[in-house]
Amino acid sequence: MINKLIANIKKTNAPIVVGLDPTTKLIPGYIMDKAIKEFGENFDAAGAAIWEYNKGLIDAIYDQIPAVKPQIAMYEQFGIPGLVAYDKTVKYAKEKGLVVIGDIKRGDIGSTSTAYAIGHLGSVKIGNTVCRGFDEDFATVNPYLGTDGVKPFMDVCAEEKKGIFVLVKTSNPSSGEFQDKLIGDKTLYHTVAEKVAEWADSLMGNEYSYVGAVVGATYPEVGKAMREVMPKSYILVPGYGAQGGKGKDLAHFFNKDGLGAIVNSSRGIIGAYSQEQYASFGEEGYAEAALAAVKDMKADIESAIG
Amino acid sequence: MINKLIANIKKTNAPIVVGLDPTTKLIPGYIMDKAIKEFGENFDAAGAAIWEYNKGLIDAIYDQIPAVKPQIAMYEQFGIPGLVAYDKTVKYAKEKGLVVIGDIKRGDIGSTSTAYAIGHLGSVKIGNTVCRGFDEDFATVNPYLGTDGVKPFMDVCAEEKKGIFVLVKTSNPSSGEFQDKLIGDKTLYHTVAEKVAEWADSLMGNEYSYVGAVVGATYPEVGKAMREVMPKSYILVPGYGAQGGKGKDLAHFFNKDGLGAIVNSSRGIIGAYSQEQYASFGEEGYAEAALAAVKDMKADIESAIG
Repeated sequence: MINKLIANIKKTNAPIVVGLDPTTKLIPGYIMDKAIKEFGENFDAAGAAIWEYNKGLIDAIYDQIPAVKPQIAMYEQFGIPGLVAYDKTVKYAKEKGLVVIGDIKRGDIGSTSTAYAIGHLGSVKIGNTVCRGFDEDFATVNPYLGTDGVKPFMDVCAEEKKGIFVLVKTSNPSSGEFQDKLIGDKTLYHTVAEKVAEWADSLMGNEYSYVGAVVGATYPEVGKAMREVMPKSYILVPGYGAQGGKGKDLAHFFNKDGLGAIVNSSRGIIGAYSQEQYASFGEEGYAEAALAAVKDMKADIESAIG
Repeated sequence: MINKLIANIKKTNAPIVVGLDPTTKLIPGYIMDKAIKEFGENFDAAGAAIWEYNKGLIDAIYDQIPAVKPQIAMYEQFGIPGLVAYDKTVKYAKEKGLVVIGDIKRGDIGSTSTAYAIGHLGSVKIGNTVCRGFDEDFATVNPYLGTDGVKPFMDVCAEEKKGIFVLVKTSNPSSGEFQDKLIGDKTLYHTVAEKVAEWADSLMGNEYSYVGAVVGATYPEVGKAMREVMPKSYILVPGYGAQGGKGKDLAHFFNKDGLGAIVNSSRGIIGAYSQEQYASFGEEGYAEAALAAVKDMKADIESAIG
């Protein structure tokens, strides 16, 4: 899948991923109202509204971008119907040729991490039948539990030719609280990154590894350092747009081959219709507004990385 | 809920929690076969089998223990039907008076952590209706992202009188890879524990805080130190039994009041029927075998903490 991700990036000339993070605030009011009219004020309405919203977004932008990244928390908050919408979104995006990065930030120990890995990237046998669960192409993984927590994902990735992005340095203000702490002369995130580089070496695709990393756009100087520590890992870069990261900050996250990073934007794209710049599209033009925002983001990043 | 947890522990005289971690290997064959006969070789069968298995376990042991801890990964691996079984299990256990600790190990940033927090411990408004999701009493939380990732859970806990257990030192062999690294003269887990103590002070129940910690039974000397660093936090102790922790190792996790820790066993209880010691119960006696194993575990821990 890292090879397909790179092929998709080259084809669309867009090292970007759109975060499909639906909230009741972002879903256009007319979609929510229609769903409530049909299902009542309940999670079924939320699930139906998310699905309509996401389908509209995917249909508008799928040929302009290589990948989408649904954030599972935004679906999980609506219980089972929310997760059904997540499942449908993953499957539909894949049908449209998009690579799907499940932003699940899971991580546990041994057999429990294996359960997450097979549930999201692999398969389970029921009787003699192989059954596949959420079946994303990539998943984000939390490294706090060490190799025991990550290795089960790598084993499934090796079998399925899929990939993971391990949290190294997150984009949030308090990410430094633990991640920036010095261990000897290196930060914790640097220590994690060295481990990621080691894991990456052991699980290579053609040019890049199946093991990538998450490094926030909000810390460009960190991006530069981490790029060198993990030369073979794709870096998933959250924090562009709504969180404050700018195109010019992103150049350091890329390798000299113009590859090696994929920049995420969520609210900035899927909620574009509610921003002044794209307000003329109106609520019902939310998908076209997203398309315009995608094109602007592509131009911004292209001008930054040359 | 921390008050209810303590009341339940006192009532049952059992500082233990049973991990409901169903796998196709643990579910008795006759239950799985029956489900496959009804639903086919698919996730619906897995979900139905899990639910029957869990209901039998809960019915057998609910009045002997204060709490259960379903590990969501073991349900998530079976897709939506697995999560439906998780949801039913949580609700049924609560009906039976048990405190439910959702072992979800979630953790993200800002609004995303809020989504996890409201989805698992709180509520969402759809139109004007307040809707509740998985609605566990406690959740486990990963601290790697710092205060931003934990605070949203605390906000929901303050409102709902619910609680969290923050991962401090996990029970797995490679937990030391990052958690044991020295930051100045303290380990990372010690640094996290100090933060937990600070969070705990700000969110107190009667005797203990709504903010607890996870410290593995496999590291008893760590338990002793952590008990002192986080005096007001309940410590959830995994790793007893199958992972190698013994009753005598557990004394240090408790405070002088005999409270402050709750010890988890999963496979050791729910899979007791497959162990030599309880083999006479047979597969169909899995629930009675679990009850016998619970009683033995209670005695083991009582003899250790006096």
